[in-house]
Amino acid sequence: MHVLIIGGGGFIGSRLASEYRQQNPAARSSLTLFDRHFPETLANDPEFDCVQGDFGDPSQIDALLDKKPDLIFHLAAVVSGEAEKNFDLGMEVNLNGSLHLLEKCRELGHRPRIVFASSCGIFGGDVRQVITEETAPKPRSSYGTQKAIVDLLMNDYSRRGFVDARCLRLPTITVRPGKPNAATSSFLSSIIREPLNGQPASYPVDPTSEFWILSPKQVVKNFLHAASLSPELIGDDRTVNLPGLTVSVQHMIDCLERVAGPAVAKRISHQPDAFLQSIVLTWPPHFDTRKADALGFTADQDVEEIIRNYIREENIQSTIA
Amino acid sequence: MHVLIIGGGGFIGSRLASEYRQQNPAARSSLTLFDRHFPETLANDPEFDCVQGDFGDPSQIDALLDKKPDLIFHLAAVVSGEAEKNFDLGMEVNLNGSLHLLEKCRELGHRPRIVFASSCGIFGGDVRQVITEETAPKPRSSYGTQKAIVDLLMNDYSRRGFVDARCLRLPTITVRPGKPNAATSSFLSSIIREPLNGQPASYPVDPTSEFWILSPKQVVKNFLHAASLSPELIGDDRTVNLPGLTVSVQHMIDCLERVAGPAVAKRISHQPDAFLQSIVLTWPPHFDTRKADALGFTADQDVEEIIRNYIREENIQSTIA
Repeated sequence: MHVLIIGGGGFIGSRLASEYRQQNPAARSSLTLFDRHFPETLANDPEFDCVQGDFGDPSQIDALLDKKPDLIFHLAAVVSGEAEKNFDLGMEVNLNGSLHLLEKCRELGHRPRIVFASSCGIFGGDVRQVITEETAPKPRSSYGTQKAIVDLLMNDYSRRGFVDARCLRLPTITVRPGKPNAATSSFLSSIIREPLNGQPASYPVDPTSEFWILSPKQVVKNFLHAASLSPELIGDDRTVNLPGLTVSVQHMIDCLERVAGPAVAKRISHQPDAFLQSIVLTWPPHFDTRKADALGFTADQDVEEIIRNYIREENIQSTIA
Repeated sequence: MHVLIIGGGGFIGSRLASEYRQQNPAARSSLTLFDRHFPETLANDPEFDCVQGDFGDPSQIDALLDKKPDLIFHLAAVVSGEAEKNFDLGMEVNLNGSLHLLEKCRELGHRPRIVFASSCGIFGGDVRQVITEETAPKPRSSYGTQKAIVDLLMNDYSRRGFVDARCLRLPTITVRPGKPNAATSSFLSSIIREPLNGQPASYPVDPTSEFWILSPKQVVKNFLHAASLSPELIGDDRTVNLPGLTVSVQHMIDCLERVAGPAVAKRISHQPDAFLQSIVLTWPPHFDTRKADALGFTADQDVEEIIRNYIREENIQSTIA
């Protein structure tokens, strides 16, 4: 068994690699990670074969795919804010890179299983509607457009037998450790992470605004679950809207206060931002996930659990007032 | 005013050109038609500037677009049956050709209005469902996949102000004159056209199978109407499911018999075809077209009107028994 994680050096990718390795010892499967950068701990770990490179460069992807990985996790992406500001880069990586991946798999003919990180950002418009598997993607961002297109391609390439794909439409992943990134949803991690680290944080939308979220722990679990499902179980339509929690910004702040105390929660302030609003407020926060539920995908229990897991995983109890 | 019709030599494109010219004299607007082939009547008509070439060749498209047409009708396509059998050709023309068109328009920066011939073939799956503007495209063909992708691109390029697109999702167009083509829906024209010409014709599906149809006359009318609409009227979502008629094969045969007599209708037989069934039976025949209706798009009155129009337009009354 040969497994490839594209975007394996990123926050989710490296967690996925570690979790996969825990469940599948090296004797049974080789694991190659591909990314532009790797954390040192990962690069120096003999359990992983880390290959540094650029997903937008076809020749580098070809070299990886020529080894005919049986299972490919495709997590490489230019994030929403960056794809909106740099249209060419988003198209090159999110669309052309993914199309090249599919074309190369088709050429090789070994029909690999692909787990693709799609996004609930493909939906947009009326945020009061409840999104089902039958709801049309109406992206209001170039990122969402590119993800929706790759979902369609993954479906057609699967239907024709070129690959065996499953596309997980991810809620906003929170709490991400580290620094803010160019994702327009970055504040949904910052408002938990920064206050816990003694830093101020802000949110750009009205505090009653609702979002659809999932924790890093659950998304990794769902990626591995997706890889384990038979094509017959998933059916003709290879896309799945992952389960999540519908939460308002105010609810997240209230949960942080309950877990870490009012002094921590007071570090959060409201700083409206028109650009961020123009994208994140088009994401519907209400989903009917009966397909995902029936297939065994899972969400977090509540926001407090997400915050407590984050605190435990990042060993940051000591900083809480 | 400079108008370009890509696919202007085809059956719909050339009718569209003639109709456009009737409504807009040459003094007011120049009209360039681009296609692989042109009927002689069109090529020799000084009212039209006919350019022969291949939509899959970027350099040829660039030369046309460099003249900065204000209005582009994009009808070029590899049809459904051909795109299913020749995957590379479908991707090259239907996807890459359209993407190149959009990229070139973006580069030129003059924000042309584009009327794109999309297709109700982007829908698939449960044919009992009623398709609305909010229904997710679930194409069960590569043709439908490619059209659905271009719809998404047209929307994003419009949202960003690169073009001003409107995508018409066409029902099956019937009755087409001439010969059967590689469209999997070709039989829906053949069963009317061939018997009227004294020839036998067959259909590959159960006669109770229902389809969503529109006449050539109405689709041309709707193309011109789409070009006349302001962007504000259409709104953020540039796609429109065109109105049509839901008809069974048996109903079409019955209408032909009423218009042309039982001897003509008897020339039609049932010849099941698994390949054609695998595609056409995934097309839902029931649509809720309130968006199109509100915007002023129109359908035919009934099948008999479609048949009578065809007979009159093609001057074939004399052949009816």
